[in-house]
Amino acid sequence: MKNLAVIILIFTCLVGSGTAISAEVPISETTAECIDCHSSFHPGIVNDWQNSRHAQITPKGAMAVEGVARKVSSKVVPENLQKVVVGCAECHTLRPKAHADTFEHNGYDIHVVVSPDDCKTCHATERQQYSKNIMAHAYGNLANNKLYQKLEHSILASTEYKNGKINLKPANDATKAEACYYCHGTKLELSGTETRDTEAAGELEFPIIKGWPNQGVGRINLDGSMGACSACHTRHTFSIEMARKPYTCKECHVGPDVPAYKVYTASKHGNIFSSMHSTWDFKAVPWTVGKDFTAPTCASCHISLLVNTDEEVVVERTHQMNNRLPWRILGLIYAHPHPQNPDTSIIRNKDGLPLPTDFNGGLATKYLIDESEMGARRQAMQAACLNCHDTSWVSGHWKRFENTIAETNAKTLTATRIMQDVWKLGLANKQDSIYNEAIERKWSETWLFYANTIRFASAMGGGGDYGVFFDGRYQLSKKLLELNDWLDLRKKMDSVSKK
Amino acid sequence: MKNLAVIILIFTCLVGSGTAISAEVPISETTAECIDCHSSFHPGIVNDWQNSRHAQITPKGAMAVEGVARKVSSKVVPENLQKVVVGCAECHTLRPKAHADTFEHNGYDIHVVVSPDDCKTCHATERQQYSKNIMAHAYGNLANNKLYQKLEHSILASTEYKNGKINLKPANDATKAEACYYCHGTKLELSGTETRDTEAAGELEFPIIKGWPNQGVGRINLDGSMGACSACHTRHTFSIEMARKPYTCKECHVGPDVPAYKVYTASKHGNIFSSMHSTWDFKAVPWTVGKDFTAPTCASCHISLLVNTDEEVVVERTHQMNNRLPWRILGLIYAHPHPQNPDTSIIRNKDGLPLPTDFNGGLATKYLIDESEMGARRQAMQAACLNCHDTSWVSGHWKRFENTIAETNAKTLTATRIMQDVWKLGLANKQDSIYNEAIERKWSETWLFYANTIRFASAMGGGGDYGVFFDGRYQLSKKLLELNDWLDLRKKMDSVSKK
Amino acid sequence: MKNLAVIILIFTCLVGSGTAISAEVPISETTAECIDCHSSFHPGIVNDWQNSRHAQITPKGAMAVEGVARKVSSKVVPENLQKVVVGCAECHTLRPKAHADTFEHNGYDIHVVVSPDDCKTCHATERQQYSKNIMAHAYGNLANNKLYQKLEHSILASTEYKNGKINLKPANDATKAEACYYCHGTKLELSGTETRDTEAAGELEFPIIKGWPNQGVGRINLDGSMGACSACHTRHTFSIEMARKPYTCKECHVGPDVPAYKVYTASKHGNIFSSMHSTWDFKAVPWTVGKDFTAPTCASCHISLLVNTDEEVVVERTHQMNNRLPWRILGLIYAHPHPQNPDTSIIRNKDGLPLPTDFNGGLATKYLIDESEMGARRQAMQAACLNCHDTSWVSGHWKRFENTIAETNAKTLTATRIMQDVWKLGLANKQDSIYNEAIERKWSETWLFYANTIRFASAMGGGGDYGVFFDGRYQLSKKLLELNDWLDLRKKMDSVSKK
Repeated sequence: MKNLAVIILIFTCLVGSGTAISAEVPISETTAECIDCHSSFHPGIVNDWQNSRHAQITPKGAMAVEGVARKVSSKVVPENLQKVVVGCAECHTLRPKAHADTFEHNGYDIHVVVSPDDCKTCHATERQQYSKNIMAHAYGNLANNKLYQKLEHSILASTEYKNGKINLKPANDATKAEACYYCHGTKLELSGTETRDTEAAGELEFPIIKGWPNQGVGRINLDGSMGACSACHTRHTFSIEMARKPYTCKECHVGPDVPAYKVYTASKHGNIFSSMHSTWDFKAVPWTVGKDFTAPTCASCHISLLVNTDEEVVVERTHQMNNRLPWRILGLIYAHPHPQNPDTSIIRNKDGLPLPTDFNGGLATKYLIDESEMGARRQAMQAACLNCHDTSWVSGHWKRFENTIAETNAKTLTATRIMQDVWKLGLANKQDSIYNEAIERKWSETWLFYANTIRFASAMGGGGDYGVFFDGRYQLSKKLLELNDWLDLRKKMDSVSKK
Repeated sequence: MKNLAVIILIFTCLVGSGTAISAEVPISETTAECIDCHSSFHPGIVNDWQNSRHAQITPKGAMAVEGVARKVSSKVVPENLQKVVVGCAECHTLRPKAHADTFEHNGYDIHVVVSPDDCKTCHATERQQYSKNIMAHAYGNLANNKLYQKLEHSILASTEYKNGKINLKPANDATKAEACYYCHGTKLELSGTETRDTEAAGELEFPIIKGWPNQGVGRINLDGSMGACSACHTRHTFSIEMARKPYTCKECHVGPDVPAYKVYTASKHGNIFSSMHSTWDFKAVPWTVGKDFTAPTCASCHISLLVNTDEEVVVERTHQMNNRLPWRILGLIYAHPHPQNPDTSIIRNKDGLPLPTDFNGGLATKYLIDESEMGARRQAMQAACLNCHDTSWVSGHWKRFENTIAETNAKTLTATRIMQDVWKLGLANKQDSIYNEAIERKWSETWLFYANTIRFASAMGGGGDYGVFFDGRYQLSKKLLELNDWLDLRKKMDSVSKK
Repeated sequence: MKNLAVIILIFTCLVGSGTAISAEVPISETTAECIDCHSSFHPGIVNDWQNSRHAQITPKGAMAVEGVARKVSSKVVPENLQKVVVGCAECHTLRPKAHADTFEHNGYDIHVVVSPDDCKTCHATERQQYSKNIMAHAYGNLANNKLYQKLEHSILASTEYKNGKINLKPANDATKAEACYYCHGTKLELSGTETRDTEAAGELEFPIIKGWPNQGVGRINLDGSMGACSACHTRHTFSIEMARKPYTCKECHVGPDVPAYKVYTASKHGNIFSSMHSTWDFKAVPWTVGKDFTAPTCASCHISLLVNTDEEVVVERTHQMNNRLPWRILGLIYAHPHPQNPDTSIIRNKDGLPLPTDFNGGLATKYLIDESEMGARRQAMQAACLNCHDTSWVSGHWKRFENTIAETNAKTLTATRIMQDVWKLGLANKQDSIYNEAIERKWSETWLFYANTIRFASAMGGGGDYGVFFDGRYQLSKKLLELNDWLDLRKKMDSVSKK
């Protein structure tokens, strides 16, 4: 048990930031047993945990905090868990019957994959909110949407060239896990067990989990729950500090499809963050505007509980991130009001397709939030802005943002009109898929990359470059010209060929 | 007035970096009155200001500093402003008659938009220099150049597809403000007033300002002045620290049109900055090479007053950034000596077009700086280099840079020659615009993106990737091949069609 | 000699990080003489050196360190060098007869370019390992490979357009030095001497060195040695801290050809680095996993000596970076086992071409490492992983990585099959070069940019965006469609033309 002594010693050093925590932190016997071996075999994990708040305070201690500073949202936490810090065993032995990957390990029933339904033991509100977050449904929103499945197939499929044709065969699970489902989350399934010869304890049996490892936001877990808290609260520190920094969001939001991180770093806000954040307090709960931080990060606008220097709540914490988002500006042909239900695969447009708009931009209204809900969400978002900007600034910004939505929707409509001519003339085949020909890709980039980037630039004050020359209006207008150029040439070719 | 006490308390804590400032900082009564309400309504702004040097020293105190450490360049500052710190009222009530947006607010004449002509009260030299900076003229240089207006139109215009043709209509002001003019600066205009119901004081009247918000470098202000100091000296800290970090420049210089930030971060200098800048002193004035910083940032080379460890001036501060730039390497078909006049819309090439070169690369000499001025600017730039590099290194570097200019000019000439064939053969129409056909965009990318990036890589030691595979020579040479491929196919098509 | 006093004073302040070093650091008289002038003329260099470990400890002191903390690997260091710190003279006067650029300078024989064979005086093991590193051979691997020379030519050549054709002429040395050889390293050659009028000492003679300045990893030095330690250990601090941060690697690995840095920053590891590295110890030798750092940087996985918190060696230091790399995943049509010999220009595939695979993906087996060596390298790499991840995680990750290799190889084979049709039909000419036509560039991007990026994403847990929309599977699948679209049109054109 020499490690325990070490741990307690470390705590005494680590509890920085003025947090008053006694050096005597009670660790459960089971967790101590885990650490006894794993501090040698997985020192990285153990050290991360030691640095975490989980290792430094008991749920009981955390629950004693009153008001907005409280981090444990559950009103009731099982008695036995309250009195020890949240260690290895507290999470990995929780609800053993619920987890398909539970296995016997040195006398304990352990499961590999800790799920949101484990975390909700202490963080019930966050888990509840997150389940209504569109991100929690990221697996099914992709896997259960027939149209998206065609896009996925056209991108991931394995290929073969024969007799002048490219043939596509479905991608295997490994490819899928390395591509779309890396961020969306894989579906975990127990596929058997294996025996491994371990250094510490000889032969041991372990579960084999299909889809593992994965930390995607909509992972389907082995207890049937959806999501991975560790997507943002990186294991094994589960740090609020990291989740509040934009680097976490960058893991999935840096490409031309969702260029949020790139646009942020080129915005005035991103500039202030990059230049000054070494002086900010990323651990403070609640998070005080102008004191703990002087410009928003992703979390400030989308998630965090903010207060002002008068200690008044500016905006409530939410893990249903769309709570502050009236518009969905990415991933689809046209920007549109947010879907009502986080399961977007149920949406049907007027043509019966699982899309929030039809091909001409008409809204699938009954599946989308209404004006009043949009107003409430806009207000929640603007509440943060108004701490540093006056009303004329904020409403001027917002008007331009909504102008950009109208503008880009009109431009992707232009692209779609050209494409409809291409399909009508039989120069591309719409029936099999709308993504599997070169010209269809030109079209899809107008909305998947460029309209998208332009909207992010307007939404986030990302300004000039992302609005114009960096996947912006320059590229969008160019694609329109290229679509037309392609069509003109084929028309000419056809007329020559018919001579 | 409880806030004042708070403020003074904060000062005592904040004056770090060894700055000896008394805790008794005199704030004007008017500013105290502003803060009394706004510290609740706009805590972010007030806190930023409290952290600023403006809040920590009076102009009188600042003017007492002798020599190169002095930050207030004006020789005379009005008596009434000298004795209080530079607070809300000191700037926002200055020169009320000069500002079209001045309005009555709780008994004071306030204007929303503080302009360089306000800032020059204390910073006369910087304002004077900046007015000769090409960036101060960024609005007019774009808006008053008929050729650039066509490029702008082809990128921003609203679009409609009818009968196989894309029709363009002028972009509205909101789109313009979110695109080119986000960085170039909008033209602010008073368009009326509105009454808003405020939490603090019931119904109040406020000006409505067209083009607001904006912080572009060439903003046309409501007093007729050009520029926004806040573009780089971010409100409301106006920090020299932030302006000296490259993140500020990144706001407008990250796209393929001006990839300065990207190239910098991949250079040896950028590497040193990224790795080591947490140990640098970004606030020291003057800025000592090798002591306060160990590799240049954008500001070191282009703006800052540098001294060496013997306290000798290495290079004088300038806010006319082109003062150290012999060549203009971006934005145009060919790199060329810098324009003499910051208003570039007055330039006429031999074909009467508002361009510093003609289509074959000939210089519009009488509008550009001469060899002797180029030499002086080169010397000013190299003075900084020579602190860490010997003469052979610096002149070797410079020779290669000028070789790159010749090389890339020759390559964009090749592209232009192909394009001239395309125009001559009637395969594209030069008369209406040289940017509104797909093939014209292929051509414009050779100089607007790639020749450009290659030159930045050579200018800044950005080396391999930006010189070759990342928007560099790979892409430039590829565009030449594509231009030719496009032309070949159309020629073939024409010959087939004539059979 | 006033500067010496200054230096010693500085040392007393600088020796941070708890390093116990006496203020009395013996500097050689020669070095003191160098500093006496150069601290005025090149304060940046002198200051960097003063901050370096080289200026703070003598080789003798460094050699007294026992075990894994020892940084000087040479068993014998010349007596005269042991007792003074490693200053200007110690390096720049070493082995004067070996260096072609040695010149008389104020009574000393100085050479400008310090080479790995100078550094090996103290760092013999690192120099020996690095010579077996493929990077040390980067000059010859490009310059002596006829096929690569054609790619280089097609990218760098100077261009002229005449009679509807683009003519290429070989690029000059300056262009080459600013492009491929910026990273690969130039070949330095003494081309004469020049007299310069110096401020300090009037007219002095200096060597003129062709190819200078350069810090490429495979630079051919004036003593015939290959490489530049300063490529990663930036002059004149030669800091292990900087070399361990990913910004150093970014200098050459940020483009679409080797997007390692970009992929890293979007990975979970990169996120942890970006968020938390300000609390890490980048100077500790050995480097303790979980204590000194909590997520790998480039160096952790590829180079550094790692120990665990039980002070057991996790993996030995290597400067032959491929020591931990079974697969080569970049730069070529197909990923393949690493070459055995760092000089890759000697490889011949079954068609006699200097490539590790043939055009159909068959391996040039006798030039590549075998299964057993691949296994050993995989194990060396995974040793680091296993400190924070269990076996199922690590092997799951690796299986997917190898699946990605198979997947992307199959996809570039598809691209190559299409291209082979293009060549067979005479629509492009394979004989002169396989990179100098527009369609050939489309093909080369499938493997040079996209297959490549996808593999990096899988190798480094770079996940979603780089696996899909950011130069990933979206772009790879699109290029296949475009290749086909191009071919279809030309076939159609041919059939029309034959009517």
